[in-house]
Amino acid sequence: MKTSGSPIVDIHTHVYPPSYISLLKARTSIPYVRSFPPSPSLRLVILPAEDTESTSRGRPVGAEYYDINEKIKFMDTHDIDISVISLANPWLDWVPSSEASQAAKDINDEVDAECAKFPGRLFAFATLPLSGGTDVIIAEIERLKTLKYMRGIILGTTGLGKGLDDPELIPIFKALQAANLPIFLHPHYGLPSSVWGERSNDYGHVLPLALGFPLETTIAVTRMILADVFSTVPDLQMILAHSGGTLPFLAGRIESCIEHDAHLQAEGKLGAHRKTVWEILKKNIYLDAVIYGDVGLKAAMQASGEDRIMFGTDHPFFPPLEGEGQRWKSVDTNYEAIKNARGEGSEGARLALGGNAVRVLNLST
Amino acid sequence: MKTSGSPIVDIHTHVYPPSYISLLKARTSIPYVRSFPPSPSLRLVILPAEDTESTSRGRPVGAEYYDINEKIKFMDTHDIDISVISLANPWLDWVPSSEASQAAKDINDEVDAECAKFPGRLFAFATLPLSGGTDVIIAEIERLKTLKYMRGIILGTTGLGKGLDDPELIPIFKALQAANLPIFLHPHYGLPSSVWGERSNDYGHVLPLALGFPLETTIAVTRMILADVFSTVPDLQMILAHSGGTLPFLAGRIESCIEHDAHLQAEGKLGAHRKTVWEILKKNIYLDAVIYGDVGLKAAMQASGEDRIMFGTDHPFFPPLEGEGQRWKSVDTNYEAIKNARGEGSEGARLALGGNAVRVLNLST
Repeated sequence: MKTSGSPIVDIHTHVYPPSYISLLKARTSIPYVRSFPPSPSLRLVILPAEDTESTSRGRPVGAEYYDINEKIKFMDTHDIDISVISLANPWLDWVPSSEASQAAKDINDEVDAECAKFPGRLFAFATLPLSGGTDVIIAEIERLKTLKYMRGIILGTTGLGKGLDDPELIPIFKALQAANLPIFLHPHYGLPSSVWGERSNDYGHVLPLALGFPLETTIAVTRMILADVFSTVPDLQMILAHSGGTLPFLAGRIESCIEHDAHLQAEGKLGAHRKTVWEILKKNIYLDAVIYGDVGLKAAMQASGEDRIMFGTDHPFFPPLEGEGQRWKSVDTNYEAIKNARGEGSEGARLALGGNAVRVLNLST
Repeated sequence: MKTSGSPIVDIHTHVYPPSYISLLKARTSIPYVRSFPPSPSLRLVILPAEDTESTSRGRPVGAEYYDINEKIKFMDTHDIDISVISLANPWLDWVPSSEASQAAKDINDEVDAECAKFPGRLFAFATLPLSGGTDVIIAEIERLKTLKYMRGIILGTTGLGKGLDDPELIPIFKALQAANLPIFLHPHYGLPSSVWGERSNDYGHVLPLALGFPLETTIAVTRMILADVFSTVPDLQMILAHSGGTLPFLAGRIESCIEHDAHLQAEGKLGAHRKTVWEILKKNIYLDAVIYGDVGLKAAMQASGEDRIMFGTDHPFFPPLEGEGQRWKSVDTNYEAIKNARGEGSEGARLALGGNAVRVLNLST
């Protein structure tokens, strides 16, 4: 998919900088990193569904998790010119309040320094000290201006603990708006395990990963829409992981349910000033292209516009199951989706592969 | 959208036959029908989120719920030639085991008799006595052959209580396959209320209706796929409500997560014999067109094929909030989606509006 003159940019690619691995090694409940004897190799357990005795407890932690040189090798193998790296979930959600500020500074400084090792090839989304309180969070947002390679922040769906429709988040959203830093919204907590049924352990990680993650993202952003966040903070920019979860597909239904809701009408919330879901999609929302198929990608492209789609890989997750070769099928499936949706060499493909990311995230040094 | 020579068929349209209203009036917990003084009018409460003191507790039960003449009037107003009516959720899920068989017979006989009043204009999906045990359920499936207008059955996501990936359902699925009766899969239970957050009451019914319903459907059918139901019962036909919930959009991600799952690989479940999600979508699955937008509808059409999409209205739900006119916006939005997705008068539109339903459900008398 190499396109001359137009870089390929991966905006969904995670890192575990060494200081974060150290924090995880010190823990005994998820998220944690440890070995499971008799094997000496380290494994990372981040999801409740993974924290069970099975052949697939957690996942192996190789150098691709913490060695930035491995990220560059992966990029070279897959024709990726620029990566916008982000700390993997669950970020600093679990850090005690008193330690949040320092942990975020350490991580953000370390990630920025990693970017500096490969000027022009690496940029990053920063991590916020969410448990530290509003002042600490806003102070870190201000401080990010001093870090050369930061181009936004990565955020989970819990916010300060009550979700992203929490009014307490408004000052933080306004600070991000003022700093022109987009939010890369990424899921982690999925759905309550009861919804997967008694047999879910038979299905490996499929249900929480394939459905729990995108549904969590969809719920989070829909709650923001219903709380009218995008009127209160009109220039807030959101980049939604996994092509918005399911938002492009469900936008029509959400909009119809809003239009037909007697309670919202009685509360005077259905006036002409209301921003529709479709308007918000084209004004405040960008979507990554981590969707593994052109059916969904075309819906994403139409929903938010071709100028708002950004290629991603989800590296280092979804590696090949067996060592069949250097290239990862998960990456090629997403390349293929772009090709099938818009045609190789088309303007839509060029924008999705990197043109949009360069423009929106200002990826020049 | 009237197309000469090709009928318009609504396959997603619910009824509350008088015997079902009587059953609901005798109840005091959801689902139930009662009046809330001082107003004398009856209201139906079917969702936990609706069962709260508010301006929108439940919904008004008018004649359109139980009078089949109102269904015909609605059809005439909206250019619908044929409706395939189905009992509304939650069907007979809550009926005591000993009463299930008779309740299903009464409902199915009554619905069939309503169809007979308007020959050629009404067909139906039957209701199964799910709490009655396998033998009772299969006996009712057999008995449906004697009812002239039955063209399938409507089913919720709980099955016998453990979801649709329950192995105990296989004999029932095989009986439906043998009887050539498609399952119209319809959500009711949504998601645990914790996912909607503290402010969900501020948002009327939007979150459970707009997201809970489609996500429930997606989870249910994905669990069937993972349980390999479509290999065990290879000709099982499923019609998924609300364009499959979110299945068309997430199919690529589900397929990728299956392909990359170490547990499934270790269990030998990733062999060449495995049916992919894409194959199942085009072989076993039909999708209604109740999606309120061409973005999602195009994805649905591509995922399962233009020959597997069927128009629906969800009547009597989603009525206009105010009496602005005879036509319902929710219906016109779905007509508009078909027009925008494929063009008025196109073959794709003709198939979606009724051609597919007539062929697949054999809608001739």
